[in-house]
Amino acid sequence: MTTTRRKFFQTAGAIAGASLLAKPLTAFSAPLAFAPKGSKKLTLTYRPYTLELTHVFTVATMSRKTTPVVLTEVEYDGVVGYGEASMPPYLGESQESVMAFLKRIDLGKYDNPFELETILTDIDAISTNNTAAKASVDIALHDLVGKLMGQPWFNIWGFNKNNTPTTTFTIGIDTPEVVRQKTKEAEIYKFLKVKLGGKNDKEMIETIRSVTDKPITTDVNQGWKDKHYALDMAFWLKEKGVVLLEQPLPKERTKDLAWLTEQSPIPIIGDEGVQRLVDVKKAEGIYSGINIKLMKCTGMREANKMIAMARSLGMNVMIGCMTETSCGISAASHLSPMADWADLDGNLLISNDCYDGVKVVNGKVTLSDAPGIGIRKV
Amino acid sequence: MTTTRRKFFQTAGAIAGASLLAKPLTAFSAPLAFAPKGSKKLTLTYRPYTLELTHVFTVATMSRKTTPVVLTEVEYDGVVGYGEASMPPYLGESQESVMAFLKRIDLGKYDNPFELETILTDIDAISTNNTAAKASVDIALHDLVGKLMGQPWFNIWGFNKNNTPTTTFTIGIDTPEVVRQKTKEAEIYKFLKVKLGGKNDKEMIETIRSVTDKPITTDVNQGWKDKHYALDMAFWLKEKGVVLLEQPLPKERTKDLAWLTEQSPIPIIGDEGVQRLVDVKKAEGIYSGINIKLMKCTGMREANKMIAMARSLGMNVMIGCMTETSCGISAASHLSPMADWADLDGNLLISNDCYDGVKVVNGKVTLSDAPGIGIRKV
Repeated sequence: MTTTRRKFFQTAGAIAGASLLAKPLTAFSAPLAFAPKGSKKLTLTYRPYTLELTHVFTVATMSRKTTPVVLTEVEYDGVVGYGEASMPPYLGESQESVMAFLKRIDLGKYDNPFELETILTDIDAISTNNTAAKASVDIALHDLVGKLMGQPWFNIWGFNKNNTPTTTFTIGIDTPEVVRQKTKEAEIYKFLKVKLGGKNDKEMIETIRSVTDKPITTDVNQGWKDKHYALDMAFWLKEKGVVLLEQPLPKERTKDLAWLTEQSPIPIIGDEGVQRLVDVKKAEGIYSGINIKLMKCTGMREANKMIAMARSLGMNVMIGCMTETSCGISAASHLSPMADWADLDGNLLISNDCYDGVKVVNGKVTLSDAPGIGIRKV
Repeated sequence: MTTTRRKFFQTAGAIAGASLLAKPLTAFSAPLAFAPKGSKKLTLTYRPYTLELTHVFTVATMSRKTTPVVLTEVEYDGVVGYGEASMPPYLGESQESVMAFLKRIDLGKYDNPFELETILTDIDAISTNNTAAKASVDIALHDLVGKLMGQPWFNIWGFNKNNTPTTTFTIGIDTPEVVRQKTKEAEIYKFLKVKLGGKNDKEMIETIRSVTDKPITTDVNQGWKDKHYALDMAFWLKEKGVVLLEQPLPKERTKDLAWLTEQSPIPIIGDEGVQRLVDVKKAEGIYSGINIKLMKCTGMREANKMIAMARSLGMNVMIGCMTETSCGISAASHLSPMADWADLDGNLLISNDCYDGVKVVNGKVTLSDAPGIGIRKV
């Protein structure tokens, strides 16, 4: 074997890009030869990008047709890791704020790219928020380190790629005609996620049920205000084959949420109410489980810790996403073997994905054995 | 580069063993070429071994001169990972119980050696206890997987090897002459751990203070019975330069321990009272921190989760050990960059260590860049 790994990754796009992802699913990905050469400095670059949504997307609080993202790259010794920050506008970050944050990061001062705990702790300390910006560096570093190790992250974390869950496909709030149409378009998915909290919640569910009897997860995005109404709906939804109810009430209403979780016949999952690792313990008793999203929690490293913590507290885990390219979605997918449910359709809702990565095969999140987060540029 | 990694590990003992551990501290350990060949089945072997202690070891509850262990090896494709179960008699495991447990494990059914979560969850489910037996497989699998990745575990976990703490060196309960002698023998260590809970606690501390003013940690091993006495001692110990007090009261006395933790001028650390991941949350408010030992918690994987959880709860972390060879101690050392204190002297107290691994240099835990847990047979 004479090809160095550095050279392999430099030329992979040209000569081996497709086979990198399409190679046979061996028991594990054998590391390739790697002769360290070139710049042994971590360098971070980034650029803004705008995701075009295939459908106008409506949740309880707003509608939109695009999502701004920032694409990052971290290079070390000729190997490049890819990352992404996705900024749905209601979360308070923008391309400007992300790039201003990234400008403050000096990766050049770290000698060892594997030192993720130190590097990411330092980056987290730069500011209180900016979680998507932080995630964009976390993901790129994970992709890089996985490539340097010659391993996909599910292997590095010790997860079983056969245990990935079925992913949900999201149906936004819309007219019955559009909902019916979207449900039919989602034929290949075995699990649907329905956005509730609009004025026609029952109609949404009934419309979908007129087309399919697939299991459904529901997400209210804090859209309901009355706990008794929420509980009545939970019972009604269970009858309709709904398996969980996400963030039914505003996140501040912790007492009402705890009451609802206690009474509900289906699990109540916290999303807006559970952002980072420190929130997991607070969520115990208030929610049955948590929805972990890389853009909320600063990335893959903290997400993995959140899963371990939630599991040890006996809570359910859902892995979710924003509207993202296959970069962010693939990164999150490596955690999905540890989740009860995956809501990883963000890349399926856009028309201009600039990466090729994780696939949904027969409705199931299907990871490649390519190293890092397993994506390539398209 | 023509040497395959498999061949490298097969011959490492003969031609490159010493240099494997002594190689220069580069930024990271470059993976070598690896051509999968030979038996792609995980196979587990084990044998009993008896550790000879250099000093009769006395804690609050007993004395002894030997410690029984079981040494394990897991092989995959010609690469061998080393593990160990150490069974101080008061913990209820023996060479017989460990070997009976190991006999029940069938590693041959797992195709992917990287699937640690699945494999170790299955093994944990075999029985309720047997934590040292479980740790012996966990450690061997980690050593194997690290070697297959060509990386030391501190890199795989993303820890900074420069952040390893100073380790304590334990002085057992004994006569003033022997204590003085042991303290002098411990000259190269910068931190001493003193076993209390005997009849001469103050004399022990005074004797050590007659020889050195090094910082001291104390471990009562549940030996005190009165919370007011414990609090008085905590104040007295603080005056004597003691930085923490481990398991001062019986683990069942949670209310008294919580009271003591609230009042004490130095951190109260739970050891016997905190065994596994599920115990970490229960320990909040009862102890200031926890002492994590691989033999208590089933190994490296769960220990790493316990650290993340304890940290997120704002608790201190100590990494401890039993009397172990350099196998168990090296395994635990890879976690030590995340600990406030390390008590990793188990291998320094025996005369027949059969592995060479982590070193104490200027009192500090010093990890090698060798892959896996970084040990070799001697």
